[in-house]
Amino acid sequence: MVKGHQRVRDDDEENAGRLLALSDGVFAIAMTLLALDIKLPDGLGPAGFSQALRDVMPKVWAYVLSLLVIAACWRGHYQIFQYVRRVDGTVIRLGLLSLGLVALMPFPTTLLAEYGDQPQSVAVYSGAVAAMVATQLALTIVLWKRPWLGSAALPDPVARNDVADLASTVVVFAAAVPLAFISPTGAKLWWVVLIPVKSMVGRRGKRLRAAAQRFDA
Amino acid sequence: MVKGHQRVRDDDEENAGRLLALSDGVFAIAMTLLALDIKLPDGLGPAGFSQALRDVMPKVWAYVLSLLVIAACWRGHYQIFQYVRRVDGTVIRLGLLSLGLVALMPFPTTLLAEYGDQPQSVAVYSGAVAAMVATQLALTIVLWKRPWLGSAALPDPVARNDVADLASTVVVFAAAVPLAFISPTGAKLWWVVLIPVKSMVGRRGKRLRAAAQRFDA
Amino acid sequence: MVKGHQRVRDDDEENAGRLLALSDGVFAIAMTLLALDIKLPDGLGPAGFSQALRDVMPKVWAYVLSLLVIAACWRGHYQIFQYVRRVDGTVIRLGLLSLGLVALMPFPTTLLAEYGDQPQSVAVYSGAVAAMVATQLALTIVLWKRPWLGSAALPDPVARNDVADLASTVVVFAAAVPLAFISPTGAKLWWVVLIPVKSMVGRRGKRLRAAAQRFDA
Amino acid sequence: MVKGHQRVRDDDEENAGRLLALSDGVFAIAMTLLALDIKLPDGLGPAGFSQALRDVMPKVWAYVLSLLVIAACWRGHYQIFQYVRRVDGTVIRLGLLSLGLVALMPFPTTLLAEYGDQPQSVAVYSGAVAAMVATQLALTIVLWKRPWLGSAALPDPVARNDVADLASTVVVFAAAVPLAFISPTGAKLWWVVLIPVKSMVGRRGKRLRAAAQRFDA
Repeated sequence: MVKGHQRVRDDDEENAGRLLALSDGVFAIAMTLLALDIKLPDGLGPAGFSQALRDVMPKVWAYVLSLLVIAACWRGHYQIFQYVRRVDGTVIRLGLLSLGLVALMPFPTTLLAEYGDQPQSVAVYSGAVAAMVATQLALTIVLWKRPWLGSAALPDPVARNDVADLASTVVVFAAAVPLAFISPTGAKLWWVVLIPVKSMVGRRGKRLRAAAQRFDA
Repeated sequence: MVKGHQRVRDDDEENAGRLLALSDGVFAIAMTLLALDIKLPDGLGPAGFSQALRDVMPKVWAYVLSLLVIAACWRGHYQIFQYVRRVDGTVIRLGLLSLGLVALMPFPTTLLAEYGDQPQSVAVYSGAVAAMVATQLALTIVLWKRPWLGSAALPDPVARNDVADLASTVVVFAAAVPLAFISPTGAKLWWVVLIPVKSMVGRRGKRLRAAAQRFDA
Repeated sequence: MVKGHQRVRDDDEENAGRLLALSDGVFAIAMTLLALDIKLPDGLGPAGFSQALRDVMPKVWAYVLSLLVIAACWRGHYQIFQYVRRVDGTVIRLGLLSLGLVALMPFPTTLLAEYGDQPQSVAVYSGAVAAMVATQLALTIVLWKRPWLGSAALPDPVARNDVADLASTVVVFAAAVPLAFISPTGAKLWWVVLIPVKSMVGRRGKRLRAAAQRFDA
Repeated sequence: MVKGHQRVRDDDEENAGRLLALSDGVFAIAMTLLALDIKLPDGLGPAGFSQALRDVMPKVWAYVLSLLVIAACWRGHYQIFQYVRRVDGTVIRLGLLSLGLVALMPFPTTLLAEYGDQPQSVAVYSGAVAAMVATQLALTIVLWKRPWLGSAALPDPVARNDVADLASTVVVFAAAVPLAFISPTGAKLWWVVLIPVKSMVGRRGKRLRAAAQRFDA
């Protein structure tokens, strides 16, 4: 009977494995495709070349910005799935939705890089980030409420802090959508609010995790 | 002798592993490349920008539609290979054919997004989906008839229901090919027939799987 | 001491694992990027659309042809690495060279699809396939001569037959390079020579493998 | 308690696994995307075709050059992570930064291929390579100083030699940045300095590793 239980667990690990393989593939491509947009036209003279190189700089900054966003999403994804062994229909559906939004990120990023002064660009970018983080929030809640899917149950205070962390990101970026139509620059400055919030929530999470580990030992 | 048997099983798991790694790579790229098409031309003024943003919306909807199709294909692929440990020549050939069709999906999708009112677009899209699902149907039948390739044999009623599920999708999309030349819009509405069919077959599959598990225990 | 030996073997399996993961990634992308070239220009009228759809057909055939070539390369790669557990510097260098050639395949394929009547296109395509298969031939010989890298030694008659199989492909495609400058169509017909050759060698390989397995048991 | 320790180690191996899967994905895409740039315009006549084929040759050489650079980076990455089982925040951040730079490599390469006579192209390319190798240097130092993350501690003389190897690459390419503004050709020749340096350091590394293994046995 122990043998049989082992078989079932192995099959479930395999399942989570394929969702993670698909996810890492999508993250890898989204990270790389953003860089694909950074290029110069052919056949420029020396003066045109220098100008084109200066013109391409906004795209480089957009790449850096979006690399940070996608890398942060990957870190979130990695933390969410760290102890997950089994996946059910709801987790797969949310996971695929989240990947669809990650794959979409090159579009709002290019928009922001080329038309960053337009309200719609800032609104679309903020909305895309908010939607992507919202799916991570939903995944976190689902996995917290279904501890049988993981190899270890997250202590409630830690899970609640993780939810607060993701929820604050969703709220800030969602609020930036209407803000962008009043002032695109204002909305971009508003994003900065997240730095102190996330730093505070992050420090609290570290403290809670350490406490939970002390309690375990 | 148990040792020897173990070695053979491990090698076969490794083999299925590489086909799955290749598959997850192709699915990840197909999901991401569809989004690559969503972009605006450079150097537009505010009015041209708003217009271009409106013009890009059909591509966004096509991306959403095709993400759903490719995600559904991945779920089908994942369910088909869930208990598969060994792969033989036939499974590899069918698997590679199926990947070739998944990799092709961005073309019919772009066609549908940009020329959705043309009969040929709807016909090509319907034909591509029908062909892709047909390879999944063939894989399901091959694996059902060769239980030695898997870690667990699928009970016959469950397998028969899975075959009915995939076959109904093939039939609906294949029938949409000639329908598209009579009325492109009619063919798109005809796709909707699949929603009640798949929901009914899906519910039946859930019931059969539960019964099989009760029988197992 | 058995424990220590185990550790070394595990580390080596991990190493082969990363080379295979990189390889499957490159194969997946090469398979998918070929399909990226199949697309229509924007904003065509009904007549222009039908014409563009007819014009895109050579690209579809080139995709099918190259999918077959890359799929065959993947199958070769999978058979070569089936029993490989350790990789050394030579295998890694040959493996990376082989991936570089696989990644290059979309170029000769596009060339063949768009300028298939030009001698240079047929020559470049033939040369690329010959080079790619030549690296597989080199890998096969290296791994045959270093049995300590694998989990099972290939019997000499089987290995010799595999070498003959790959060498015949290299010879046919290499010979097509000068042939293409005499007659592009002739060179394409010359490729067909491979069908009876590979079928014969393949059948012999199957017989030899079966004989080796009988000897094992 | 041994059981508990086992669980923790397995979880950490899983974690390193996902960072490596993401990395292999990015390397695979960066290797393949470089080849995407090699293509001819549509609809050329025989004379224009021959001319275009000659014009595309610089891109082919740039692809070969960058394939060598990215393959060398992958080999470095593979050697750095060979014995790594656990990853902490610092390793993940450095790993993601390094991937961001690998994903960026197609841009400086295209620059070098198309505008190789411009000082800025050589400077950007040299700077990109220097930055990418600098992150590998940082990773090597971090992992050397945190032996608990690996399955085996690197002997100090071996680690010091690896650091010298990477540091020499960083220094040569960083020095090429200002050099490029004096003479682009001179900076390219200066790169060649690395061949004897790396060959000497490499041979020393091989000797030190062999000595360490003798000491182990």
